[in-house]
Amino acid sequence: MVEPLGSARYADFLALNGSAAGFSLGEGGTPLQPLDRLAERFFLPSVLAKNEAVNPTGSFKDRGTVTAVQQAAAFGFKAVGTVSTGNMAGSTAAYAARAGMGCVVCVKDGTPPSKILAAGVYGALVVKVRGDYAALFRRSFEIGKALGIGFLNSVDPWRIEGYKTASYEIFEQLGGRAPDYLFVPTSAGGHLVGLVRGFEDLKRAGLIRKLPAVVAAQAAGCAPIARAFARSRDITARFKNPRTIAHAISNPDPPAGRIVLRLLAATGGRAAAVSEAGILKAQRLLAETEGIFCDPASAVSLAAFMAMARRGEIPPGARSVLMITGSGLKTIEDLDPRRLKVIESRLDGLERALARV
Amino acid sequence: MVEPLGSARYADFLALNGSAAGFSLGEGGTPLQPLDRLAERFFLPSVLAKNEAVNPTGSFKDRGTVTAVQQAAAFGFKAVGTVSTGNMAGSTAAYAARAGMGCVVCVKDGTPPSKILAAGVYGALVVKVRGDYAALFRRSFEIGKALGIGFLNSVDPWRIEGYKTASYEIFEQLGGRAPDYLFVPTSAGGHLVGLVRGFEDLKRAGLIRKLPAVVAAQAAGCAPIARAFARSRDITARFKNPRTIAHAISNPDPPAGRIVLRLLAATGGRAAAVSEAGILKAQRLLAETEGIFCDPASAVSLAAFMAMARRGEIPPGARSVLMITGSGLKTIEDLDPRRLKVIESRLDGLERALARV
Repeated sequence: MVEPLGSARYADFLALNGSAAGFSLGEGGTPLQPLDRLAERFFLPSVLAKNEAVNPTGSFKDRGTVTAVQQAAAFGFKAVGTVSTGNMAGSTAAYAARAGMGCVVCVKDGTPPSKILAAGVYGALVVKVRGDYAALFRRSFEIGKALGIGFLNSVDPWRIEGYKTASYEIFEQLGGRAPDYLFVPTSAGGHLVGLVRGFEDLKRAGLIRKLPAVVAAQAAGCAPIARAFARSRDITARFKNPRTIAHAISNPDPPAGRIVLRLLAATGGRAAAVSEAGILKAQRLLAETEGIFCDPASAVSLAAFMAMARRGEIPPGARSVLMITGSGLKTIEDLDPRRLKVIESRLDGLERALARV
Repeated sequence: MVEPLGSARYADFLALNGSAAGFSLGEGGTPLQPLDRLAERFFLPSVLAKNEAVNPTGSFKDRGTVTAVQQAAAFGFKAVGTVSTGNMAGSTAAYAARAGMGCVVCVKDGTPPSKILAAGVYGALVVKVRGDYAALFRRSFEIGKALGIGFLNSVDPWRIEGYKTASYEIFEQLGGRAPDYLFVPTSAGGHLVGLVRGFEDLKRAGLIRKLPAVVAAQAAGCAPIARAFARSRDITARFKNPRTIAHAISNPDPPAGRIVLRLLAATGGRAAAVSEAGILKAQRLLAETEGIFCDPASAVSLAAFMAMARRGEIPPGARSVLMITGSGLKTIEDLDPRRLKVIESRLDGLERALARV
């Protein structure tokens, strides 16, 4: 009865069992915004932002959560779970609520209260787990099996299937073309894998001739994939002492690291690591120049793009798309208030105060 | 080159000068979600949520800000401004950044830091103004005139023009129908006026026969329109000592109050005031049952709908649409953590902890 505007349009095109009805929160259908002002100001080649922050729970995860929850329901699970430090927690809890399923969210001890609230509000059980995060990731599957909870973690295959829809949209929004470069902030690797599979579908269908060259963008403070790429390795090694403001992509031991490295090679892409200062500058530039307020992890794709463009590694005629993966509203505590222009005034002195600026 | 998915599709249909290109952040195209689980659980008539929180800056304001900023640019303004306590501040600052215009945001002294950050991040000048808010609203136009700043406040006519696009979308998403009832959280009144005008357009074009009955939903703690309606007045009186958690609609002296009252009568609608407990309960229900995390102001429309349905004031066959006006992520500090299910566990005790629940 209700016409879908978002990624639900593609439901019949995905390798899923059962019906999608009753699981959607209207995910997808996100803006693809040309960053013309930014490109002009910094003499950059053509670049657009795929703004996945404009999803029901504020991140790209929603495209994958809807398909994963749908599959969990089709397979008879009464409850789902996830291991997450942020975006995936809220996304999984929201879709479980929509589906009428129970939900368990395991977070690291020390996760900020706002992230716990943003998942708990949907009625999920939030468990603060003390212990190694990578071990928790693995252990969750065993516990899920024992207790009948479908754990939908970052590289869940049904999740990855859902991420493909962003590629279909980019293709449609560009008027039936793939971009030349695709920049993806990369953590566990599931998002990147899904996006490439989406473009592979389009290529197999004869709609595009060539996959975009995919750039896995990471923070230098936690860059297991970029390091492996730089050393021409085909597997990642655990990144010691990860430390970056880009929390959403701070995964020292990415479960899809090997597949990501293979896809980078297959598409003629690469991995790139950017500095903390570069991340914060890119986040600010995107807000001030283009009106997009993203989280630091998203800004990593812009920082990587600008660095490559500056080094002449992107041909002038090429068109790049940057994945903006999450909303800045979720990491508002990471902003530096000293960077803002805030003044005080009495009403009767307001005209004078404004005239001065 | 980039195909619009959102309200930019309707640009030629609005009474605006100049071109819309270069002003959009991809606003509109928001989900219309059937609330079937909620309806089943509480034996409610058919109801859907138009989730305007899924907009670039997290609120319905974006639909109006894009048209208002576009018009300000067409009329030669180099800077825009707004008087706001929240959603409009961030929205106006974002679209000004996108347009490359200067921006001044005047907020009440005492506005929470997170709201100031969410506007300041776009590079806007944020002025904390001490003094009467209603006086500031009026004074801003004089100052704007003197200094060449286009003040785009809540009832700006170009803003209202943009709000019409949500009605067009609802009509399309319902397969070419208007709903029987439309619930609108109502503050200054501009949103409600724009929505009704949108349906009036559709009626004039012969696409629908009847306007939806519009319900202006307010918090009892600040209900100037509901009070005037209950007393059969055709103008509102200033509401003394406003106090409600629904900050985004806490306007004691709504500038469009008179027009709103006329439109309620013209559509066969009404005004409704709901309690603080009802608002918080509706917010929780929407998250836990349908996976939508909205701000308290949005929940006012669900609370009003449920109260009317309980009193038998909505016929069983009628279809209602609730406007969800803003994201819960922006008011996360208003959540009560004691309502959430949060436990702690060591990794080796996790299975036991989960088995117990």
